[in-house]
Amino acid sequence: MHDVAYKPHEEQHFESTETVRDIVIGLSDGLTVPFALAAGLSGAVANGRLVVLAGLAEIAAGSIAMGLGGYLAARGDAEHYASELRREREEVVSRPQDEAEEIYEIFEQYGVSREEATPVLQALERNPPAYVDFMMRFELGLEKPAENRAHRSALTIAGSYIAGGMVPLLPYMLVDDNAGALRLSVWITLLALAVFGALKGRLVGTGALRSAVQTTLIGGVAAGAAYGLARLLNHGS
Amino acid sequence: MHDVAYKPHEEQHFESTETVRDIVIGLSDGLTVPFALAAGLSGAVANGRLVVLAGLAEIAAGSIAMGLGGYLAARGDAEHYASELRREREEVVSRPQDEAEEIYEIFEQYGVSREEATPVLQALERNPPAYVDFMMRFELGLEKPAENRAHRSALTIAGSYIAGGMVPLLPYMLVDDNAGALRLSVWITLLALAVFGALKGRLVGTGALRSAVQTTLIGGVAAGAAYGLARLLNHGS
Repeated sequence: MHDVAYKPHEEQHFESTETVRDIVIGLSDGLTVPFALAAGLSGAVANGRLVVLAGLAEIAAGSIAMGLGGYLAARGDAEHYASELRREREEVVSRPQDEAEEIYEIFEQYGVSREEATPVLQALERNPPAYVDFMMRFELGLEKPAENRAHRSALTIAGSYIAGGMVPLLPYMLVDDNAGALRLSVWITLLALAVFGALKGRLVGTGALRSAVQTTLIGGVAAGAAYGLARLLNHGS
Repeated sequence: MHDVAYKPHEEQHFESTETVRDIVIGLSDGLTVPFALAAGLSGAVANGRLVVLAGLAEIAAGSIAMGLGGYLAARGDAEHYASELRREREEVVSRPQDEAEEIYEIFEQYGVSREEATPVLQALERNPPAYVDFMMRFELGLEKPAENRAHRSALTIAGSYIAGGMVPLLPYMLVDDNAGALRLSVWITLLALAVFGALKGRLVGTGALRSAVQTTLIGGVAAGAAYGLARLLNHGS
């Protein structure tokens, strides 16, 4: 008998990474879409109040849609994990032959023979909770979701979307001249996108400069297209 | 020697699942945000042309932002996979001791002793490509991304966003009466959200009815909030 203490697979950095991912999701859409919409509309209507109104309506719609979407996605993940966990727990007890066969199949994919895999199987069979965790991760590729993730995920995404969306709208609220507000909105939002992209690039490891260029480009292209389309439609009609 | 042929881990259903996921991403935002924005604006401005203009600007902005975002995310995944693959390939050759230690650590988490894991390690050491694949999946949790995924992903997301976004806008283009267009837009979009939610629920396995209710609810709440906010701001100023 080789008794090794069973250490459940804990990842300390898991939750903070997920929160950062949620902030990135909310901010990148929040900085981009309301910005592009406001720029697009100000290319067609000379009324700054209307641009602000549409922008705020978009922020309300976008933050709720993304936040609720994130909530349901996280809850769906948690439920999927729980239902698969129940199934594996039952199968380990009720169908040990089938489970053993699944273990052999996993190892066969990597050229490991049944004989070579048997000691691992025996160790797992002595330790049902570890067996179940092993199947969850190596057969199904599932990680245990953090507790209460759904609520926090929803609020983080929605809050980041609102924070990001207010950046391009503030100039339209503060500057009376519509063309001046558009210029100011373009500059501060492109700057915010570059700073956000650089931070994101450092976090994710793609490199600050490259990520800054990409993020700024997406926002710029989206805003330019919306502006061009709105002008075209307005002149054409 | 137990020679087992090495079968790389192939998943036939992989690409179609990813495409479906991209369609779901594009459609769910496309059906929700332009819908909510159009409903919100028509609560504040009595001008149907302006609602259409803002809606089209939002569709242009949203589809580009989401499409480019999807493109970069997929390309980032592919690059991350390639760089980790290079690193593992090198480490398997240059630092066999460290790699062996990593294998032991993976198994220790599941209560499998070094002695029990040794036959698996030896089998992997005889078969370097399988060793590398094993580490990619079981140490790093990475799946090989499909070829050319980035372009297809971008076009699928953007196209689905545009298709979804046109549903709520069509009534404003076809019906002259603004209140009538709003009513028609609300009904056909809620219907589209319910159908889309039901199909999504069947595909993902959460259940058609439950998913239909959720999807319709998100769209309805987002549109209601945007409408309420726009009315409030319009009356307040």
